[in-house]
Order: sequence, then structure tokens, then C-alpha cells
Amino acid sequence: MTATLDERARREYLDFALGLIPRTRAAIRSRLGGLTVEVKPDASLVTDADEAVEALLRETIAARFPGHGILGEEFGHTRPQAAFQWILDPIDGTDNLAHDIPTYGTIIALHHEGVPLLGVIDHPALDLTYSAVRGLGAFRNGQRLSIRTPDPAAALGREIIVTTAPENFARSQDVPLFNAICRAFPNLRVYRDCFAQTRAAQGSVGAMVEFNVKLWDVAAVPVLVEEAGGKYVCVREREGIYSAVFGKAAVVDALLPLLQT
Amino acid sequence: MTATLDERARREYLDFALGLIPRTRAAIRSRLGGLTVEVKPDASLVTDADEAVEALLRETIAARFPGHGILGEEFGHTRPQAAFQWILDPIDGTDNLAHDIPTYGTIIALHHEGVPLLGVIDHPALDLTYSAVRGLGAFRNGQRLSIRTPDPAAALGREIIVTTAPENFARSQDVPLFNAICRAFPNLRVYRDCFAQTRAAQGSVGAMVEFNVKLWDVAAVPVLVEEAGGKYVCVREREGIYSAVFGKAAVVDALLPLLQT
Repeated sequence: MTATLDERARREYLDFALGLIPRTRAAIRSRLGGLTVEVKPDASLVTDADEAVEALLRETIAARFPGHGILGEEFGHTRPQAAFQWILDPIDGTDNLAHDIPTYGTIIALHHEGVPLLGVIDHPALDLTYSAVRGLGAFRNGQRLSIRTPDPAAALGREIIVTTAPENFARSQDVPLFNAICRAFPNLRVYRDCFAQTRAAQGSVGAMVEFNVKLWDVAAVPVLVEEAGGKYVCVREREGIYSAVFGKAAVVDALLPLLQT
Repeated sequence: MTATLDERARREYLDFALGLIPRTRAAIRSRLGGLTVEVKPDASLVTDADEAVEALLRETIAARFPGHGILGEEFGHTRPQAAFQWILDPIDGTDNLAHDIPTYGTIIALHHEGVPLLGVIDHPALDLTYSAVRGLGAFRNGQRLSIRTPDPAAALGREIIVTTAPENFARSQDVPLFNAICRAFPNLRVYRDCFAQTRAAQGSVGAMVEFNVKLWDVAAVPVLVEEAGGKYVCVREREGIYSAVFGKAAVVDALLPLLQT
């Protein structure tokens, strides 16, 4: 149980995860300008940088924590029965990386007995690292994050909302949900990578709606957002496909009825 | 006529416009952290930084080119009959600036007898300045931009498209156009500031669709995109409200039939 992990152990995992970032950044930087881009069967992109970063993370984690499981976007699941599971998206937003859109990021999460324990999201091109471990706060480049409650006098409907693309909603014939969000919260953005999640973790936006994504896409978010004082709700999980809403509690609560399916 | 402006004159305007950027950046930087944010009657935001930057630009332009007109988002139109018109959006994406989303920018354009002559878009938080003057190329931090033609073997439908928010389409009951774009080009993003325009100017995205925006929102785009080798088409202009599509020519051509209204 996560509750039995003392603070020293939690800090150790965080320090280890943060120590990975200079290495993942170097692996990405060394490939910029000469990326080898391929199209995967699902039409998404993969580059040699995605593979190199995940291989580096897997190697380093396995050397330090040989009993832990590792689930990554590119190379599958090792030790799926282990209590500790590292969940990795080496480059979230590969399409953006490949097109010189600097909002992509590296996602590293650690879950313990199914409960999110640690989350790190790094934006190498923006020099921004977000990190949190359960019970010890959320940070951006070492500075504590605290999501402010919306001003009760301001119109909740003008809060900024970020969603995944209409395409994600279309996968389960849920475009009407996307349209309902647009009508209720017209101040909308669609970023298509973890830049949206870090905007939610630092309270820049009212909330983010992830729809029909994989576990590695959202694995770092619960701890990051909750430790920053926000709320995270998984609204659907079907066969490894997740939908969630997170951010300022009042905005999350206002979005929830729109997402009941 | 623009054709009569020799290269030396065009370079002079460009050098002058680029010389404004260190001053606009300093004016913004000095206000970060202590922004005074107000809500305008149209529910958009304005800060003391917007007003300070526009005042600075107006003063500097008027001192150097006293016969030129100036149209800015915050302080109206002076000398609307002049042949040369500077068109200014001191901070495009004020909502993003106010919420620590670093994609906002300063837009400076010069039109001559109604024809776009010069365009500059600066992203202070990203340290990226885009500039172009008619006939002399488009540049990003001094490096020449050249939009590549899409690979004919690749599916045009997977090109990245950026649009203004569904809210902009709703202003003229044109949400069906937004939905048609989503269906034809599902790899969609919504950024809500000039970051989308600079992505188009550097060929990161297939095209951008601006819908129901003001002149200062798009005034720098035609020269930036065309000088980078792309295509710009204004699809509608009604009482000072503009809609346009721009980017890679093949993608613009594929989007045009969806935007006929």
C-alpha cells in the first residue's frame, strides 16, 4: 500500500525520476535536425528519438529497480505483475516534435499497486520540468505549484478548457460530448500533447478533458494535479482506453455532467 | 504602389520594425508577475502590458513616420487616409499571457495602399521573432524560412491543421464549416493566438484557418506566409471581420472548397 511508503522512499523515487531528465533531454537534443520519422499502423508517428529515450529510461530503471514493472508506449510491458509500475511516454506529441512545435514532452509516472505515486512531465524545448510525488507537493522547475480557486464573481463559462481533438471523441462516436463542451465552455483550446496537462497542473487553464487516450498519456497527471491542489476524475476506462477531466475543482465539477455517457 | 518601393526602402521598414522588438519585449517583461487584467465588453481580456506596448509602438512609429496611419487593437485608428498603415496587435493572445501560456505574441504589420508590405510576429516568451517584407524573404530569428511542399505519397488528410476556436465559427452560424474541417483533416489543433500563424509560416502545419477575426489579428500573415513560399487566401471579408486560410499551397487548395459559404 502506498500509505506504507515513508517520505524518504517517496523522495528517493522523485530524485531518481528527476535525475533521468538531463539524460532524456540529451538523447532528444542529439537527434533534433536529423530525426528519422516513421508512420505507425495507427497513423501516429514514431521517431528514433522516441525509441532511444524509452530504451534509455528502461535500461536505467531496470538497473536501479530490477523488481519493478515497466510499461512504455514503444516497447510494451515488462513484469506486469510487479507492485511498482513505471509508465512511460518517451515523447508525448511526437507529431509536434517532428514538426518543430515545441510543446511536446517526456512523461514518466510511477504507480504502486495501481495507485499513482509519482508524475514527471518534462518539456525539453521549453526548459520546463513538472514533478510531483504523493504527499510532497507539485513543482515546476523546483517552484511549488498551487492551483487557485476560480474567482466566484467571474463567469465559470469563460474559464479556459483544453480538450483532446474532436478526432479522439469520434473514436467512440462521442463528438456530441465535444460539441457540448464547446457550447458550455467556448474559451477552448486543443493542443494535442502533454502541454495541456502541465497547463492544468499550474492552473493556467480551468480544466483539461482527455478523451480516449492510453494509460501512458495520462499516467503522470493524477499526482501532478492533485498535489497542486486540483481535482482529477477518471470518467471512463474501457479496455485500456481512458477518459479523464482534471484541473480546478469547480471547473471539473461543472464539466462532469457533460461527460456522463 | 508597392511596386515602386525600392529594396532599400523596404529594408528600411523591416529594420525599423525589428528594432521595435527589444523595446516591446522589455515593456512586457517588466510587467510579468504583476499584470493588471481587465475584462473588455466583448469578454476578451486586456492588461496594462497590452496598452503599454501599443502606446510605445504608436509613439515610436509616429516619431519616425509622422505621415503614416496607425491602427491598433487598443487605441483605434489615426490617419486612416494615409497610404502607409501600420497595423498593430500589441499582445495577440492576452488570455494566454494572463494565464502563463507562453505562445502569445506581438503583431506588427505595414500595409501600403491596402497591400500587405511587411509582417513581424514576435513571441517574447519563446524568444522567437518572425519577419518578412515583400520580395525579400521570410525569416525566423534571422534564419530564412521555406515551406516545403507536402510529400505527394503522404496522405494529405493527415496534415496538421490549426483553426480558430469553434466559438469563432459560431459567431456567424458556421459551426458546420468547423465540423467539416475536423472530418476532412482530423489532425487538428486550436491554439487561439498567433503561435498558429508562425507554425504556418515555418511549415510546421499544413495550414491554418482563421475565422471571423479582426484585421490586426491577421495583418502580418500574408507577407510572412507568401515570402516563406506558402499561399494565403482571404475567404471572406465583411465589415472588418476577416476569414482566411494559409500555409502549404496544396493544403490550402484542399481546404478552400470546405470554406465556401
